[in-house]
Amino acid sequence: MELQPLLVLGLPSIFPAFETLNSHKYIFLKAFSSKLPLLQFLATKNVAPSSIRAILCDPRQALTVDILGLLPAVGFVLTTTAGMDHIDLSECRRRGIQVVSIGSLAADDVADMAIGLLIDVLYKISANNRRVRKCVASKPLNFTMAPKLGGKRVGIIGLGSIGGEVGKRLEAFDCKVMYHSRNEKPFVPYHYYSNVVDLATNCDALVVCCPLTKQTRHILNREVMLALGKDGVIVNVGRGPLIDEKELVHCLVQGEIGGAGLDVFENEPRVPNELFALDNVVLSPHAGAHTKESCQVKCELVAASLEAFFATKPRISVQPVIEERHFYPSFECLPASSGEPAYA
Amino acid sequence: MELQPLLVLGLPSIFPAFETLNSHKYIFLKAFSSKLPLLQFLATKNVAPSSIRAILCDPRQALTVDILGLLPAVGFVLTTTAGMDHIDLSECRRRGIQVVSIGSLAADDVADMAIGLLIDVLYKISANNRRVRKCVASKPLNFTMAPKLGGKRVGIIGLGSIGGEVGKRLEAFDCKVMYHSRNEKPFVPYHYYSNVVDLATNCDALVVCCPLTKQTRHILNREVMLALGKDGVIVNVGRGPLIDEKELVHCLVQGEIGGAGLDVFENEPRVPNELFALDNVVLSPHAGAHTKESCQVKCELVAASLEAFFATKPRISVQPVIEERHFYPSFECLPASSGEPAYA
Repeated sequence: MELQPLLVLGLPSIFPAFETLNSHKYIFLKAFSSKLPLLQFLATKNVAPSSIRAILCDPRQALTVDILGLLPAVGFVLTTTAGMDHIDLSECRRRGIQVVSIGSLAADDVADMAIGLLIDVLYKISANNRRVRKCVASKPLNFTMAPKLGGKRVGIIGLGSIGGEVGKRLEAFDCKVMYHSRNEKPFVPYHYYSNVVDLATNCDALVVCCPLTKQTRHILNREVMLALGKDGVIVNVGRGPLIDEKELVHCLVQGEIGGAGLDVFENEPRVPNELFALDNVVLSPHAGAHTKESCQVKCELVAASLEAFFATKPRISVQPVIEERHFYPSFECLPASSGEPAYA
Repeated sequence: MELQPLLVLGLPSIFPAFETLNSHKYIFLKAFSSKLPLLQFLATKNVAPSSIRAILCDPRQALTVDILGLLPAVGFVLTTTAGMDHIDLSECRRRGIQVVSIGSLAADDVADMAIGLLIDVLYKISANNRRVRKCVASKPLNFTMAPKLGGKRVGIIGLGSIGGEVGKRLEAFDCKVMYHSRNEKPFVPYHYYSNVVDLATNCDALVVCCPLTKQTRHILNREVMLALGKDGVIVNVGRGPLIDEKELVHCLVQGEIGGAGLDVFENEPRVPNELFALDNVVLSPHAGAHTKESCQVKCELVAASLEAFFATKPRISVQPVIEERHFYPSFECLPASSGEPAYA
């Protein structure tokens, strides 16, 4: 069987495992490991740009119109993340390139992280953990009393696959769940706010898990933060630029909001070091969607998707069979009528 | 109205607030603030030991047979914790002293802490938080892939008010919940193991929340830990001596179990400093049951309980009205037929 060239941008979390399992099928063109411009990089590999039909990509390296312009034969783009903000979707649509995201497979993992961050911020688990480790053995382990999670009004921004999983978990903690999304969802029992400021005004905590688009960039701005108030907690498991980070830092430092649990940052890997001294902030290295089990399932789905694409050439229509009942694969194939992914 | 003397042992978390609200009703005899022997302390306050009819106590100071022997008129002992291991229940029973715990009021708070610790250990939230804070801004935020919480088999040791709340939450994370307690519970959907080793053998994680008694001391011994295995996680929100801490430290250091989230320790406030270097361990200063909201409700219940006791003199039979639907007050009054509290 002829090996197919597969361009890999960024370093998808599944990649090391995926490469090991599929080295007999693909020539992996690991652009993420080279500092050369793409054409030069391909030349060093003796690969003609026109031979590349599929790309596996990741938010750490944007798939821009310029890169796509160098690759005339690309028909298939695959990302393992729920967010697709690193892909120029308009250009893909214009060229009829199919874009597939399997990120919602890990929606439950991301939701677990959101709940973990929320509990951590409220109960100061990380901060107390640091304090205990510095404590003198004979000193009493004092702590400040935490606000209770039960009964808290928690607003979810973006009630897609991740937001839905967050809501389900919050219900078990007896939280009052409400949400904002582009449109009100039918059959959802939570109160809907069409306006984020109104949501924040009526909430004790906000969990941000919508996709990053032109419309949602800085959806959490200063006005929203002030509406949330000085006891309010923000958890972000979506994308960093969903929050105006400069204002977030200001609000946290000034005590204008109560705390934050952040798995993502506006200019990753940069984390604002003004936050390092704050005990009401939990900082996480964009780790939410990456569990061993999800990685394994993602590897299988990526393999199946690529195989289907290379076998048939026309547009992909893989319907993956997932045995774990908690995975909700949503193959969000473009071209579609809207410029945005469908899940927020 | 004549002020009643109220002996306060340990420093109940509600105490500062309770004292402020009730200084017009009680002479607070704060034995926890004195290093004098009890009789000498009472002499400095001009209080006759025989005038003390009620005690408010806390695990930080044991209510022993010796202390009870100095106080012939005591008829009522109140603790704000779920555990009653700091009270000599046998002696109270022998003397017909009523013992009331309102700790199960905060069962949901403790359960929140248990879930927070479990997610933190699995997803390494605290450890990553520490790493991010030490990180150089320009370096990528790497992390190791976590085991997934969804689908994990979690064993609850002690399915009382706290254990029940833990189970409810774990279900929302799609965990497979199983349990051990003294007896199998009717109407509980979780699989029951009469033997803790069998439970551990069939689990990925154990959450310990049973009361500390002679029978449950070191219920998690080396055999149980080895049965749980090298990927297994232990969370303890009950009492430190439920776990053989020396063996726990050994198993963690040697990698014979996967990790631990500990809100309690065998010899508080001492925390084994062998654990300080481990990233798979989260250490919490016995903070689980202490939220602002629960504190307020506890204050009201303690006030009502004491008022009822001092008004009627005979045994208390307060049925508190709790408006928050998530509180499950269980006034576990002794004397009862068994020497153990009824909730495990």
